[in-house]
Amino acid sequence: VAKRLEKFKTTIFTQMSSLAIKHGAINLGQGFPNFDGPEFVKEAAIQAIKDGKSQYARGYGVPDFSSAIAERFKKDTGLVVDPEKEITVTSGCTEAIAATMLGLINPGDEVILFAPFYDSYEATLSMAGAKIKCITLRPPDFSVPIDELKSAITQDTRAVLINTPHNPTGKMFTREELSTIASLCIENDVLVFTDEVYDKLAFEMDHISMASLPGMYERTVTLNSLGKTFSLTGWKIGWAIAPPHLTWGVRQAHSFLTFATSTPMQWAAAVALRAPESYYDELKRDYMAKKEILVEGLKAVGFKVFPSSGTYFVVVDHTPFSLENDVAFCEYLIKEVGVVAIPTSVFYLNPEDGKNLVRFTFCKDEGTLRAAVDRMKEKL
Amino acid sequence: VAKRLEKFKTTIFTQMSSLAIKHGAINLGQGFPNFDGPEFVKEAAIQAIKDGKSQYARGYGVPDFSSAIAERFKKDTGLVVDPEKEITVTSGCTEAIAATMLGLINPGDEVILFAPFYDSYEATLSMAGAKIKCITLRPPDFSVPIDELKSAITQDTRAVLINTPHNPTGKMFTREELSTIASLCIENDVLVFTDEVYDKLAFEMDHISMASLPGMYERTVTLNSLGKTFSLTGWKIGWAIAPPHLTWGVRQAHSFLTFATSTPMQWAAAVALRAPESYYDELKRDYMAKKEILVEGLKAVGFKVFPSSGTYFVVVDHTPFSLENDVAFCEYLIKEVGVVAIPTSVFYLNPEDGKNLVRFTFCKDEGTLRAAVDRMKEKL
Ligand SMILES: CSCCC(=O)C(=O)O
Ligand SMILES: CSCCC(=O)C(=O)O
Repeated sequence: VAKRLEKFKTTIFTQMSSLAIKHGAINLGQGFPNFDGPEFVKEAAIQAIKDGKSQYARGYGVPDFSSAIAERFKKDTGLVVDPEKEITVTSGCTEAIAATMLGLINPGDEVILFAPFYDSYEATLSMAGAKIKCITLRPPDFSVPIDELKSAITQDTRAVLINTPHNPTGKMFTREELSTIASLCIENDVLVFTDEVYDKLAFEMDHISMASLPGMYERTVTLNSLGKTFSLTGWKIGWAIAPPHLTWGVRQAHSFLTFATSTPMQWAAAVALRAPESYYDELKRDYMAKKEILVEGLKAVGFKVFPSSGTYFVVVDHTPFSLENDVAFCEYLIKEVGVVAIPTSVFYLNPEDGKNLVRFTFCKDEGTLRAAVDRMKEKL
Repeated sequence: VAKRLEKFKTTIFTQMSSLAIKHGAINLGQGFPNFDGPEFVKEAAIQAIKDGKSQYARGYGVPDFSSAIAERFKKDTGLVVDPEKEITVTSGCTEAIAATMLGLINPGDEVILFAPFYDSYEATLSMAGAKIKCITLRPPDFSVPIDELKSAITQDTRAVLINTPHNPTGKMFTREELSTIASLCIENDVLVFTDEVYDKLAFEMDHISMASLPGMYERTVTLNSLGKTFSLTGWKIGWAIAPPHLTWGVRQAHSFLTFATSTPMQWAAAVALRAPESYYDELKRDYMAKKEILVEGLKAVGFKVFPSSGTYFVVVDHTPFSLENDVAFCEYLIKEVGVVAIPTSVFYLNPEDGKNLVRFTFCKDEGTLRAAVDRMKEKL
């Protein structure tokens, strides 16, 4: 294996999902629904396949889908973007992240991350040869330590990476936090890469896109995907929105990472993004009911549950059950209790920082969530 | 844009396909069929979508599809591989190439390429920080200059990249060439990355997989995909087959480039790869008829056509029509004649080497091929 990837292990999601299957445990680990996506989107994919839309798409996206992304972005942020020059369709947000790093970051550039962070950020920054500076968000509220951020920025800082709503904590960046980060980035000529794949799963406050802050669009790459919003995580449709000069870099990397993304799925994704607002309202209502079941259940089990404003994740402190660390706790939970969660230490540069914290997902049907809670009540 | 990608332009395929649309020209440029994939594969995709197979696949591949790949590889090469440890499913062969380079090549490693070459090889090697050594295959037969290869190998050589059947020339590596390359690689402890996406489009001789040569499997990464064999280039399903120690590197890069590949399409791809041999026979027969139409047509137009043994491409010398170079010729062909071809200079480190050569594809219905030939007869 190449040195740039030496330190990385099999992703925790793959590890935990295999263990779930092996032990017949209820999987509240990796974030994929155990229910299906909406019929109208599936129907659109079937129609596209029947209609012979199965040859290479335009490399940076099927034109109709690029337009649907621009329309959606306008509704969400008020920003008008040119689908021909400012949108790149990718094979999931994971590819959008990789293309952004490899397309825009040079060896030695400093990039600021907030821990805990989704594991691919660190790995793709390592591929790009970036120097990572990591700022830890701490419980209970995971707020941004602005002073630390200020002192982390140097003249070699090329970008700050944010993720709101935030995986794994469910934290949403407040307007105040975003404005402060924005000012610092403008002042120091720093880019922002913002992963907003959970933007439609914002429960306790409204989602705010970094790109919508004054002066920010021109220095922001906004990353999003279809999977979480339409319960179709396996379709692997993502995108990056950025001004033309940044889109150029993203597209160049994308051209050589995958060249193009599944054509029939892009046609279906265009239909999905044009769903009426009622679709999004219902999704949110459904998820709020699920969240209530899981959060109340985890509290009843005896966990300290940290407030989650968005995403389909909640983080708890497992120390009431006094196991050595998060990994040991998750192993115990799988083998003795029959429930899978994700240890959070893998989301930190310094694993120690996550050793008390474990993540559960509530993107499962209500019966499954109740069954998981029951198992924990009985056996923990 | 990051320095690693600075020298690259919009891919020639994207450029030429946009021009084809803009000028209403017949597109014999980018290699995608203008006919649809087989019904039984489309039906399998539709069924997978209906059956709710739309959540994240296992990162390195849906188990049933991994097994189908192993079965196919055994039929083709006689080699038995473990689908759990030796196969990685990717978002098209382009991703398999990127994952191989980023997962196995370190900065400064030397990699030997044969020009002309598919453009993503150079770009992904640049992402990996490799030092490229390029050996030119020359018309009329594009045979491997073994002495040049021998002197190119040093103790820093990490890999030789081959592509058979070869895009753009249609050359197929002979058993003798493969054996010589194999001996050199074994002697000097060098890996082989072999792109065999056109393996089922082998017309003039039998395709030979580098991995099947004695002693080679353990040092070979075999790259392939669904698109060309099943006329479904837009589904973006590829894979890499390699011994466990090399698969580890490929999978690590893949985990962070795209994480996983479209789930419903993988289920369909499993059905595709289990097609009876008659499917492959018929595909070949169809393509031989198409090839005959194009090759005879190009000769009648007045081109010098170089023999193509495999792929759905042929390369011609355009100099009878005395334009400055391949790019100028292709521009003239689009604007004045209404036919798109691909200039080959983009497939060389030194563009001069390709300035007389232009590539046409015959992956189009017979009427389209005849119409293109007629236009050239009339207007060239
Ligand atoms: C590859 S898993 C993608 C993100 C997610 O679903 C998770 O964090 O569980
Ligand atoms: C991205 S185009 C892939 C290869 C091909 O079809 C071509 O060479 O034309």
